[in-house]
This record gives sequence, C-alpha cells and structure tokens, in this order.
Amino acid sequence: MDRRNFIRKAGYAAAATPALAAPAIAQSQPQIKWRMTSSFPKTLETLWGSAERFSQFVSEATDGNFQIQIFPAGEIAPALEAANEVGKGSIEMCQTASYYYWGKDPTFAFGTAVPFGLNARQQNAWMYFGGALDLMNAFYAAHNLIAFPAGNTGAQMGGWFRKEINSVEDLKGLKFRIAGFGGAVISKLGVVPQQLAGADVYPALEKGTIDATEFVGPADDEKLGLYKVAKYYYYPGWWEGGAMLHHMVNLDKWNELPKPYQAILKAGCANANVTMLAEYDQRNPGALKRLVAAGAILRPFPQDVMTACFAAANESYAEISAKNANFKTIYESMAAFRADAFLWQQVSEATFDNFMMAQQRKKQL
Amino acid sequence: MDRRNFIRKAGYAAAATPALAAPAIAQSQPQIKWRMTSSFPKTLETLWGSAERFSQFVSEATDGNFQIQIFPAGEIAPALEAANEVGKGSIEMCQTASYYYWGKDPTFAFGTAVPFGLNARQQNAWMYFGGALDLMNAFYAAHNLIAFPAGNTGAQMGGWFRKEINSVEDLKGLKFRIAGFGGAVISKLGVVPQQLAGADVYPALEKGTIDATEFVGPADDEKLGLYKVAKYYYYPGWWEGGAMLHHMVNLDKWNELPKPYQAILKAGCANANVTMLAEYDQRNPGALKRLVAAGAILRPFPQDVMTACFAAANESYAEISAKNANFKTIYESMAAFRADAFLWQQVSEATFDNFMMAQQRKKQL
Repeated sequence: MDRRNFIRKAGYAAAATPALAAPAIAQSQPQIKWRMTSSFPKTLETLWGSAERFSQFVSEATDGNFQIQIFPAGEIAPALEAANEVGKGSIEMCQTASYYYWGKDPTFAFGTAVPFGLNARQQNAWMYFGGALDLMNAFYAAHNLIAFPAGNTGAQMGGWFRKEINSVEDLKGLKFRIAGFGGAVISKLGVVPQQLAGADVYPALEKGTIDATEFVGPADDEKLGLYKVAKYYYYPGWWEGGAMLHHMVNLDKWNELPKPYQAILKAGCANANVTMLAEYDQRNPGALKRLVAAGAILRPFPQDVMTACFAAANESYAEISAKNANFKTIYESMAAFRADAFLWQQVSEATFDNFMMAQQRKKQL
Repeated sequence: MDRRNFIRKAGYAAAATPALAAPAIAQSQPQIKWRMTSSFPKTLETLWGSAERFSQFVSEATDGNFQIQIFPAGEIAPALEAANEVGKGSIEMCQTASYYYWGKDPTFAFGTAVPFGLNARQQNAWMYFGGALDLMNAFYAAHNLIAFPAGNTGAQMGGWFRKEINSVEDLKGLKFRIAGFGGAVISKLGVVPQQLAGADVYPALEKGTIDATEFVGPADDEKLGLYKVAKYYYYPGWWEGGAMLHHMVNLDKWNELPKPYQAILKAGCANANVTMLAEYDQRNPGALKRLVAAGAILRPFPQDVMTACFAAANESYAEISAKNANFKTIYESMAAFRADAFLWQQVSEATFDNFMMAQQRKKQL
C-alpha cells in the first residue's frame, strides 16, 4: 500500500466515527494546490525570488497542505496576460504589476504607480490606511480579481539614453521604449513611445533604431549591459516613484478559500511587500557603483523637462478623469493623500535624509 | 455531551484507526496559548493597534489554535522590563523597542535606531538583507531571545522645547527628557538628560522643571497637548531616523513551536512591520496640520547643532566600540550599509521626492 492510499483509508475510517471533529480539521487544513503565474522571468531575481519566498511561506505555514506552484512569465501565461488569465479562472493567482493592464482601463495604473504619484512608503500608507486598497479591490472585482500589495521596486530610474537630454526640445521625436501611462504622458512632449520585446532592446539601441529605454533600477538593469550602447543613465523615473507589485487572486477561488488560508495568503503578500523593497534597497547601491565604474553616466532630468512632464501628466489626469468615473474617484483620493504626504515628508524625514546625504557627499559616513 | 467532550471522543475513535494521519494533524495545529506583553500603553493607538492586528492574525491563520493574548505596558510587566521578562521565560513574547535595553548593553540599540543611523527603509534593508537580523539574533540569543522586526515609526520628531535653540550654546544646561543613546550623545554638548514618567512630563514642562522633551511624532504627540507648554516643535529626531519595533520571543519557547506556527508568527511580524509604518505615514500629516493650527511652531535644528551632535555621536561610537566587541561588529556593519544606502538614495529617490516636495510648496499638488 503506498502512503497516499494509506492516508486516504485512514481518512475513510475516521469518517465512520461521529462527524463533527473531522470536518473541522478538514475545513481548516484541506489539501489545496494552486498555480501562480508571474509577469516576470526568473532572471529578474528580486521579483522572482519574492514569488519563491511567498510560495515557500504558504507551504510552511500550512504544513504543506496549501501548495502554490509558481511559474515564470510565458510558461503558462504571457507576462502581460497574467491578470486576465486569473480573472478568467484558468489560473488561481498571479504576481504582476497592475499598470500592465492600463490599456484595458487606465484605473489599473493606480495599483502600481502613476506619473508624479506616490513614493513607496506613501503608496503603502495610501493602500493600507488611505482607503486605496478597498477602492482598487472594488474596481478589480468587476474583473473577477482581488489584489494584495506584494512588493515594491522603490523609485525607478528614468532609463538609458544614447544622447544627453538638455531641454524639452531634445524630447521631440525621441524613440523611447516606455509603456503605459508614462508613455502616454511623455508623448505629449513629442516623444515617440516604442514597444519592444526585452531581447530586442540591446540590438535596437546599438543600431540606433531606438534612442532610449526605461527598465527598472541598477540591480535589474545591470544584467542587460545597456551602458555599453546607451551610456546616459537618467533619473528619476517620474512615472513610477514607487512601483508596487501585487498578487492578484481569482475572486471566486479567493471566496472558496478557508479563512485561515486567506489570512496566511494575505500575510505572505505583506511579507513579500516589505521584503522585496528591502532587497532592492540592499542590491541597488552596489549595482549602481558597478555600473558607474563600467562607464554609465548618471544624469538627472533637467528641471524644465521635469516641469513640462508634470504639466503633461496633469493634463492626462484631467482628460482621463473627464471620461472615466472610477479613474477620477481614485485619482482624487491619491491626489489628496499625496499633497499631505509630501507636506509631512518635508519635516522630519527629508531633513534627516538630507543631512545624512550631505554627510555622504562629504565622505563623513 | 458538550461539544468539547464530543470532539475529544471523536479524536480517540480516530486514533484507533491506523495512526499516520492523525498525528500529522495534531503536530501541525496544537492548541497553544501565549502571552505578549507590550512596552506601550493602549493610548499609543498605532503601536497598540499593531499588537492587536498581530494577535488577531495569528489566531485566524491557525483557525484559533494558536492564541496570543496581548497586555499593555504595566499589566503583567513594566514597559521597560518586557524583554527581560521574556528572556526569563515568565512571558512568551513581547512587543518592544530593543533600544530600551541600551543600559544593559548598548548593542541592543541597533535593533531600533541609533543616532544618525538609518531611515525606516534602510533599516529594513539592513535587517532583512544586510545581515543585521542574523547579527542581532546571535547577540539576543545570549539573553535567551529571538527578535523579528515588527513595525517602524519613521523618522521621529526632535521634540517639544520651551525656548528656541539657535546654536550649540543653547544646549548647555538644557534639561531635556531624552533617554538611552540619544541622551548619552547629546549630554556631550552640555544637555542634562532627564528621566521622567510620561504622566509627569506636562506639569514639569509647565513649571519649567524641564526645558524640553522628545516623544514620537505628530500622531502620538498630539494627545499629550505639549504645544500648550512648550510650543517649539523641533526636527528631526536624529537619534531615531527610523525607529524599528520588534516582537521578541523567548528562545526556548520559540524552539518548541511547531514549524508552521513559527512561519505564521514571523509573517505576522512582517505584516506588523509594513503596516505600522504605513499607519504612521497616514496619521502623521493630519496630526501635524492640527498641531500647527493649534499653535505649535515647527523648527529644524540649526545646522551647527546637527553637525555638533553628529560629531558627538561619532565620538560615542568610537568609545563604545573600543570596549564592546559586539557593538563594534554591528556598528561597522551598519556604517558600511549606511554609506552605500545614502549614496543610492541621492539618485532616483531623493530627486523624485525633492521635485514632489517643491510642487507641494508651490501648491501644485
């Protein structure tokens, strides 16, 4: 008799005894196997590693009874179709960035990051305590999804440029690989957003088919070697001042889940949320130093470029709000939160950080 | 037959069947009741609320089998004795700030915050991925403790002062209620650190028995009404640029815990870690605006005061490192991490934040 059969028979035998105890146990710790598709490849180690930690935690917390098998982008669903497949129910859950679904409805963008939106800490505060997670989940429910914050990259870099950007004029006609909301905003200033598969970016930059590409930040960008073909490394990525990842779950599957497993899944997401950002914060400084040593040239976007992009973003917010009620509601919630958050940040946080950054520049740390 | 007996009898009946299934269930979900003493009163809602969420999560995740009853400071252990009682084993775990035990060994301070140390995000990165949690737990093990990050206040305020501080000279003889490492550092500049129970602070400031007091930040400070008796509200609290809370567990009790409960307890702490900071970030801006409207006057510490305090802190680090090997090891780890972290922060994070803060000042948000 193999072990599996043996356990099953034990179960049947137990079921012959009075029925109250066994179901209580069965209900709280049933054996469940789920699949989680990621929008990211294994090569993006911090993102993929977070999915691995999550899956391992859920298994450990349930003594192996709730197993979530994880798949990198493309194995069971294309990267940018992850949430769509989960909504349909063909896959139980995914690790994704909600702004990938911006084309479906721009409201999706608020889950991850919007141009000149919130930084990573503010996004957490707005999501967990500013009402945003409830607003977003009410919106996601129409797509048969429920989402939980599950990571953040921090403020991303602006990307890799073949030429310096010295003024708004230099943006005109610039072929920049940038997707979604950021691409829509910057196109108002004459940029021509490009869509290109990851593997095609390096040769396209080398040949000059495109002029620039955005990606993530030093830790992830380092592997692409883009500094060899586009040495100007611009910052900040104002279209994602704190890009939040989510785990999205099919709403029916979520509702069927025993309460203890729901609690465990949510806590696994919270753990992913805090640890992913921490891992990026640990990995980015070393990667940045190596990139600069290898020839990358750091450049902030000029102030007039930032100001023009900010104005263009505000134009976009007004335009989309005029025709999309969900977007308007959530934008207004974000904007109100943002004004207070950046007021408060100027007091103790920024003053402490500025003093410490000044000491770093003076080599006093 | 009451339900309890009924379940027990069902259990006995099941035990008569082949033994493999039942023990597996019993081992993973035993009924365990623990106590957690907090170093904080219920009136500090964000801190206490975090303990409540943690306790509720552990119960939900284990279907009520692992119960952690929480007690505010003073009920089963004095606020500043929480970790000591847990180390002895009279209480299983506590919610506390490790720097409260600075007097026992200054190494404890690194768990929470040290003068001119890390901000909240950096403290997470250093703890989870920079090796600090392992270093700290190796140190805590000698006190029969294991600790998990479980919250952060963010950069605290410098506190409430009856008079303006315009220069280092103004610190001489200042009777300032400040404890631990911060108090030791600032005493080098002539400040006379005061120890005073919470309830005595308001009358002492009113009478002028003390000149100033530090506390936490707007959300917690608002309740004390200190602006009525000490209207200058200084920042930043350079002795805690990101004060991390911990849940500390008796090491023997921890080792006895089933692995699934260990995983759940750790995830509950991670959840507390990310949500407490988020709640402070949500509550502080409104509280700050109300305090200013009520008459509080915001003041940054003058640059020469900051620089003198930084020099005094570096003196303290050198002095303590010379006689305490654990302290030296962990200080060097923190200092190396800090230099890189504040280098990286100057790139995308600070540039994004500075642009947004400038828009806030221009009332463009």
